[in-house]
Amino acid sequence: MASNHENSNIPDIVIGRLPIYLRALNRLSSEGYEITSSHELGQRLGISSAQIRKDLSHFGGFGKQGTGYQIEFLQDKLRKVLHVDREWEVALVGMGDLGKAIAHYKGFADRGFHISACFDSAPDKVGKKIAGFVVQPLSELITVVSERNIQLAMIAVPAEHAQSVANLLVEAGVHGILNYAPINLTVPPHMQVQYIDPVVGLQRMTYYFDE
Amino acid sequence: MASNHENSNIPDIVIGRLPIYLRALNRLSSEGYEITSSHELGQRLGISSAQIRKDLSHFGGFGKQGTGYQIEFLQDKLRKVLHVDREWEVALVGMGDLGKAIAHYKGFADRGFHISACFDSAPDKVGKKIAGFVVQPLSELITVVSERNIQLAMIAVPAEHAQSVANLLVEAGVHGILNYAPINLTVPPHMQVQYIDPVVGLQRMTYYFDE
Repeated sequence: MASNHENSNIPDIVIGRLPIYLRALNRLSSEGYEITSSHELGQRLGISSAQIRKDLSHFGGFGKQGTGYQIEFLQDKLRKVLHVDREWEVALVGMGDLGKAIAHYKGFADRGFHISACFDSAPDKVGKKIAGFVVQPLSELITVVSERNIQLAMIAVPAEHAQSVANLLVEAGVHGILNYAPINLTVPPHMQVQYIDPVVGLQRMTYYFDE
Repeated sequence: MASNHENSNIPDIVIGRLPIYLRALNRLSSEGYEITSSHELGQRLGISSAQIRKDLSHFGGFGKQGTGYQIEFLQDKLRKVLHVDREWEVALVGMGDLGKAIAHYKGFADRGFHISACFDSAPDKVGKKIAGFVVQPLSELITVVSERNIQLAMIAVPAEHAQSVANLLVEAGVHGILNYAPINLTVPPHMQVQYIDPVVGLQRMTYYFDE
């Protein structure tokens, strides 16, 4: 489940840039553009045009020299490569302030993801409706997620509970976790994990600040 | 402001891993450990111990071969390198669901950051108290941020307003922006920008999923 054999020789750092390219193309498209170039994309993204051409060349030819990229064609191609030419169901665990904000976020739907189940362990949250979702008890996570074959989950619980929630998700058959808790998770090798930690982003900037 | 001359030859990708190391060390410390090793850190982080030793060697010797790292010493050193041995004030722009969740988040304080001003343009939010902050009007952003010499900001407004907010922040003298809006910002070269976009993390995982 967690492999992509046809492209398995492509560095992960390249894969990490593809969603950024797709996001920029979506933006260009929403602004009414139909054609772009590696130069224009590069300027928008602060990435060299040579890097963009090299990254995209891993997946075949997208544009002829001098004529640029057809935005819609490149969007379609990147959606296929990233497997978001379909919609993935996502489970959300933790319905505190952060979980609520995630549940309300409108930006998942048109980019390949759909939150379809929300869980929390707090008795005052379970059964309540938040952002259109009825919060389900954590004790039902394994049953619900495995029966519905949900592949992706977001963890928005406090750091001290994140690993035990991750263990439940692994048992439920999830293959990818987006972890908002500021702690590294230990998971089996077949699992994908990505982290969202604002402090990591902030510290990465202050490194470059003078004291 | 945005340079770090003594370490200017260190690849940005190495800098990006330092906050992860610091986070893991904080965790080990909170679990009562006093000594760790590149092997133990590597296992927790899914990074090779050789990579960790190489990354840390950029900043001088931290441990003797075979005796491991003194966690507290390494934490102090990394905090100095990342310039979070002090506390940075941060402005937060956008007080919708996401902004509110950020304002409530408890994880900034002990990692070098302190939200000290919140802004929104909506008349029904300005003047209200959210998470202990009185929301200030966007029209006062430049005055407040420049007078208080705030160096960092977080953007939590909808994508279509993010660039204009970034322009205000640049004018106010901010040097680093953490952007939660799913759009790339165009900023002057001296600015640092980091992005928080959950969909980028999700798409990076689904790439590795079979269809």
